[in-house]
Amino acid sequence: MPFEKLLAHRTRQMSRSAIREILKVASQPGMISLAGGIPAPASFPLDLIGDLSRQVIDKYADRAFQYDLTEGFMPLRQAVAAHLAGRDIHVPGETILITSGSQGVLDAVGKILISPGDTVGVESPTYLGALQAFSPYEPRYTPIPCDHEGIIPEALAPLIAKGRMKFIYLVPTFQNPSGRTLSLDRRRAIAALIERYDTLLIEDDPYCDLRYEGHALPPIKSLAPEHVVYVGTLSKVFAPGLRIGYCVAPEPIRNWLVLVKQGVDLHTSTFNQALAAAYLEGGHLQRHLPRILDLYRPRQRAMLAALDRYFPVDFRWSHPEGGMFVWVEGPEGTDMAKIYQAAVRRQVAFVPGHFFFPKSGEGLNTMRLNFTMPDPAEIDDAIHKLGDVIRECMDCRPSGQSGGAKGQQNASRAGIKVF
Amino acid sequence: MPFEKLLAHRTRQMSRSAIREILKVASQPGMISLAGGIPAPASFPLDLIGDLSRQVIDKYADRAFQYDLTEGFMPLRQAVAAHLAGRDIHVPGETILITSGSQGVLDAVGKILISPGDTVGVESPTYLGALQAFSPYEPRYTPIPCDHEGIIPEALAPLIAKGRMKFIYLVPTFQNPSGRTLSLDRRRAIAALIERYDTLLIEDDPYCDLRYEGHALPPIKSLAPEHVVYVGTLSKVFAPGLRIGYCVAPEPIRNWLVLVKQGVDLHTSTFNQALAAAYLEGGHLQRHLPRILDLYRPRQRAMLAALDRYFPVDFRWSHPEGGMFVWVEGPEGTDMAKIYQAAVRRQVAFVPGHFFFPKSGEGLNTMRLNFTMPDPAEIDDAIHKLGDVIRECMDCRPSGQSGGAKGQQNASRAGIKVF
Repeated sequence: MPFEKLLAHRTRQMSRSAIREILKVASQPGMISLAGGIPAPASFPLDLIGDLSRQVIDKYADRAFQYDLTEGFMPLRQAVAAHLAGRDIHVPGETILITSGSQGVLDAVGKILISPGDTVGVESPTYLGALQAFSPYEPRYTPIPCDHEGIIPEALAPLIAKGRMKFIYLVPTFQNPSGRTLSLDRRRAIAALIERYDTLLIEDDPYCDLRYEGHALPPIKSLAPEHVVYVGTLSKVFAPGLRIGYCVAPEPIRNWLVLVKQGVDLHTSTFNQALAAAYLEGGHLQRHLPRILDLYRPRQRAMLAALDRYFPVDFRWSHPEGGMFVWVEGPEGTDMAKIYQAAVRRQVAFVPGHFFFPKSGEGLNTMRLNFTMPDPAEIDDAIHKLGDVIRECMDCRPSGQSGGAKGQQNASRAGIKVF
Repeated sequence: MPFEKLLAHRTRQMSRSAIREILKVASQPGMISLAGGIPAPASFPLDLIGDLSRQVIDKYADRAFQYDLTEGFMPLRQAVAAHLAGRDIHVPGETILITSGSQGVLDAVGKILISPGDTVGVESPTYLGALQAFSPYEPRYTPIPCDHEGIIPEALAPLIAKGRMKFIYLVPTFQNPSGRTLSLDRRRAIAALIERYDTLLIEDDPYCDLRYEGHALPPIKSLAPEHVVYVGTLSKVFAPGLRIGYCVAPEPIRNWLVLVKQGVDLHTSTFNQALAAAYLEGGHLQRHLPRILDLYRPRQRAMLAALDRYFPVDFRWSHPEGGMFVWVEGPEGTDMAKIYQAAVRRQVAFVPGHFFFPKSGEGLNTMRLNFTMPDPAEIDDAIHKLGDVIRECMDCRPSGQSGGAKGQQNASRAGIKVF
């Protein structure tokens, strides 16, 4: 039967993400993948989960397997509230909404807030999963200019002042894909802006516990509590396969989110929520987190050191104090898609950065590198190969390929490379 | 801040379900609840789940806690495919999509198919959770006339022939709320109609394994495989809190469902999918199902016997061979909302049936009774009290309250009661 004619308007605009193809390539045998964005299996407290399963079945019995409130399993909501107090977010458990991964918050936010044509302000580049959650509701995206510290408040101010943004979506700490962290001054400036212009901010904070150096910064939620939907997850510090996310939203927003979630999945797995509650209540996160950090810290350092060693000097990259990603920018005119093809032939995969930009044609000279999956030796090997591939691609670029003055500028920049 | 102005158009039309309030009342201490629609905790294979958890952790290790394919955990997809062969649905595991409860299918179906104003054909009454999933996408509902065997093919034919329905949504077996089952002849007639008019059918089949007597009927999916999205769940025969649903859809539809699900929750809990796979693969469902049936069968019989014993003779009810519900219709003019209020004062809760009708003002004389939660003695007690309450409410109804000939007819019907 002719299915195409059945599709909703929103569906006709969707397309399969090319990044899925990249991740398929990246999972081929023999490939060193810097392409993923997933935690290392070694970071999961596997032995503990067996114990917690037994504890939960003993403690809650059938309650852990029965339908439950859409809002979430109360012991987990209370445990999350206690956990968030350590981030300067002080709310009672009743205000926490548990979702099926933080993706579940983003979908519900899109559903309750976005009418077709509405404007959503996003970082540029931004988290692709958020675009996938929002786009079915047919928004337009306003990219907010960013530098190495994340979005620039002075650039945001005039965009907010126009009053046309339904909400702003930010990942202020160790952002995916850029690894960048918004400074304290900027957090304060943004908090003041959203309060002044009564603008809603979705603050997505999946990585903040993965800090390998430096000091924690307060979430914007703690600076402008009535204007922020704070989104968190246990995927990076417990186990992503359990799909436990959560949010703290101003009450009217929370009520709508609950209503919408009921239609989407009734509620999140009770058993998994009970496991997560036991993990937090038992102090296991505090005990286990240092092991995760000890696993990732050497990988992050290996990547930064290898980039220094092997990448052309006219390439720039972020120096994140945590998270899972390093963001690399080649000189203007760098054709990262071509470098990607050459890298895959050398058994190294990464994600070309242009996928993360809300407007097409941007970020063609960028790449996202993940350091949580490969070990330090693999990272060194992969970055070494990537450096070679980049030089080969830059050197063999036909003169004038990029056209005109821009092309010459790039060629000249490429000439700076001294290895 | 003024949140109302931020809401999407679709959200402004949503309202909190009054049925939630009823379920709150029903959960008060001392109340015998016939209001819920949930499995008895005693039906969960609790000891087994502990064993399965250990097995899964041993067998899959970190893989059970890692991100996984949006389509679902392959061992579960294969196990579901094998399970469905017993229902005359013969498909390879690769064609199964696992979702977060069957609710997850319904939301995704709504998202990919419904543009605002599109028409969806539904039984009248229909399953409320489906309306909650579809309504945010702003469809109009076309109620399809039903009798005691479910929807009437002769009534469906002219509605389909108009060609305006995006899809039809049906629960053909032990329907929620009516308990009714579509006969084999009607299944064949509907299969022929949807094939003839190239119409898509969503066949929601959560209760078919809960058969206490009689013989299984083939799903419509087996009669018109290319025109049906078949939706199933393990919530009634394993544990609802694990939130495992699935669907078998024609390939183009399935591809869109996967794309949309990725934006909603990335994938369903890997651990819970692995548990469900172990439950099916190990033959545990076949072994455990008879225990569930032995638990529910006496409850269903107790309810039907008590209705015969205590309810007015001019009340009619369904005689389902399985499932979780009995549907009661009072004579026209019966004010079930008033009976509900009086019943709650006597510590018995049920759901007035009008909630399940897509058009308001219908089904005011109907009620849904659940028999899976209370035990046979509680059921007898509750139906006894309900019978008393109904008689009191019918007797004390002021003459002419319903107005005109209709009111007189009702009063006259009420007069038939001989107890």
